Amino acid sequence: MPNLPEDSIDSALFQENERTSSVGQPKEVVSVGELHLRAGGYLPDVEVAYESWGTLNSDASNAILICHALSGDSHAIGWWDRLVGPGKAIDTEKYFVVCSNALGGCQGTTGPASSAEDGRPYGSRFPVVQVEDMVEIQARLADHLGIGRWLCVAGGSMGGMQALCWAVQYPNRVAGVWATASCAAHSAMQIGFNEVGRQAIQRDPEWKGGDYYDGPGPVNGLSVARMAGHLSYLSDQSFTMKFGRRLQDGDEFRFDNGIEFAIESYLNYQGDKFTNRFDANSYLLLTRAIDYFSLKSLESAKCKFLFTSFDSDWIYPSHQIEQLHAMAQEAGKQSEWHEIASPMGHDSFLLDDQRQAEIVKAWLLRF
Amino acid sequence: MPNLPEDSIDSALFQENERTSSVGQPKEVVSVGELHLRAGGYLPDVEVAYESWGTLNSDASNAILICHALSGDSHAIGWWDRLVGPGKAIDTEKYFVVCSNALGGCQGTTGPASSAEDGRPYGSRFPVVQVEDMVEIQARLADHLGIGRWLCVAGGSMGGMQALCWAVQYPNRVAGVWATASCAAHSAMQIGFNEVGRQAIQRDPEWKGGDYYDGPGPVNGLSVARMAGHLSYLSDQSFTMKFGRRLQDGDEFRFDNGIEFAIESYLNYQGDKFTNRFDANSYLLLTRAIDYFSLKSLESAKCKFLFTSFDSDWIYPSHQIEQLHAMAQEAGKQSEWHEIASPMGHDSFLLDDQRQAEIVKAWLLRF
Repeated sequence: MPNLPEDSIDSALFQENERTSSVGQPKEVVSVGELHLRAGGYLPDVEVAYESWGTLNSDASNAILICHALSGDSHAIGWWDRLVGPGKAIDTEKYFVVCSNALGGCQGTTGPASSAEDGRPYGSRFPVVQVEDMVEIQARLADHLGIGRWLCVAGGSMGGMQALCWAVQYPNRVAGVWATASCAAHSAMQIGFNEVGRQAIQRDPEWKGGDYYDGPGPVNGLSVARMAGHLSYLSDQSFTMKFGRRLQDGDEFRFDNGIEFAIESYLNYQGDKFTNRFDANSYLLLTRAIDYFSLKSLESAKCKFLFTSFDSDWIYPSHQIEQLHAMAQEAGKQSEWHEIASPMGHDSFLLDDQRQAEIVKAWLLRF
Repeated sequence: MPNLPEDSIDSALFQENERTSSVGQPKEVVSVGELHLRAGGYLPDVEVAYESWGTLNSDASNAILICHALSGDSHAIGWWDRLVGPGKAIDTEKYFVVCSNALGGCQGTTGPASSAEDGRPYGSRFPVVQVEDMVEIQARLADHLGIGRWLCVAGGSMGGMQALCWAVQYPNRVAGVWATASCAAHSAMQIGFNEVGRQAIQRDPEWKGGDYYDGPGPVNGLSVARMAGHLSYLSDQSFTMKFGRRLQDGDEFRFDNGIEFAIESYLNYQGDKFTNRFDANSYLLLTRAIDYFSLKSLESAKCKFLFTSFDSDWIYPSHQIEQLHAMAQEAGKQSEWHEIASPMGHDSFLLDDQRQAEIVKAWLLRF
């Protein structure tokens, strides 16, 4: 079992933009022009928010792109600071590390809460986004940064899907792809969990069809969506370790139809906190993007692959990563897959700074 | 793998009171008097709805009580007709089988939607119910029926908790207890799933603090609660078997921000259908009752125990039943535990008419 601080699961997917000190540049926003989206929509001007750490070398051969998960942002040293930073597995003293907020998100890159040409938020007018669109925008960011080919594109969960998409969409622009706690395509159960969250939002009367920016917005729906998501990111064992049946206040039940257990308080707190930093329309858009994603083959890829999965991850179960490894091998690509023992469920990819970090560090050194 | 019809998972926990033909009596409602509840509340008159099948023998020694799960009702031949009926494992030609709607429910037994003395629904005035209160009401029903001692009290999930409660609350009134897909006490994750459902209901503005009976009520919240619950009752494998990534309409994505996948349509359908037959306040009350439940010991029991669990049940994992079996053994009771292979998750206890049925039938024959 990894050596985890008591409050580690609070600091993972669920953190409140805690800005740790880093050697990087402050968040920048760059315009990358118009975009015709694959599902048929159009955006006249896309802005991308990104951060970077370290120094790009003279032949631009040391660049690593990190792709964030559903609720993440460009601040990889923050949500992934166990793996990314000076002296870490993704060593910012050695590599030039870039992380951008995904298209459709709400942390600086153009998304549903951004202003359209009429000055009002897109809201319901924002087009359907697919992972392929996110990656196209990242490629334009790479052009802007003078990076012809990434040494590595890496990510977990939704970030892993983006990394895999890079391998087949821009095969000449990436030397290695690392996907962790991810999959080639969502299963019915994964889609189902996303749909519960979407319905919680869309059935909130404050959602107003997506045009809620002059009101409070669907904060209750988004909070419930986050609570359901949160349950899927951890594991029976990790919840028991952290909460068990501990009561929130005192030693006896209050029987007042309110919060009794610490886990109830925790979920409500995490759900409500999430609404301060995340846009409900982005939640709808990004969950749909990852439900749409379906990688059929890695034939066209020209990179090598690293896959990691976690034995207690039941929402992105290990057999999905095993399948990706098999796809890579069938396509004749260099690939390795490591299943890592960890009690922390899906969140393990954010928390495991031991085995996962060793594997990634060693893999990068073999380039 | 059990031999399951294609639509079996529709017919399990989620069915719409499908009344199959049976040899039983129609649903009856009996008054069992006032009740001082353990959490401090008071009900001046409790009515219990029950159904029965078969014939009570002259010394009342062939009576079996079946306790239903969260969303069930008294119609055991219906939600459990794979196991209960003429010639089935719980053979209504041999046993006198009784099933009552739980206290706090909404299918005939006094619950939050029932009329209080002022003629208005209890709503927010309904007292907190615990599993022990449910069992006290069942004991009064047994008195009414002339049953001094049940040959067996049986149930799955919440029904299993009631059966276990019988063993220690009325040790002289039960000869055997069979609990399936149940536990001694909810884990943090089980409480967490219930809390997501409760918040979906309570954050729906139509919940109105519980006094919604003159309006539409929190149908959206209850529907989302049911969708989340539904996800927890099945398994990754069963969802993949039934739905996979099949689209709801046609062969191509529509990209219209609506339903795309069959699993999405199914969950919404099941959630919405549930609101036609279930009361949101009962959902809150009963989920709290099972979160409160905590069986500390089986020392005081005088019955023998049968425990069954299912390897794909991740919300009531097998290790919880294993723990109950260990508790029974530590208390020196006759106990057996069978873990059954089934892909259907928690719902297996409603669906497995092969291995589970064989085990129960054989166990009952050894009385």
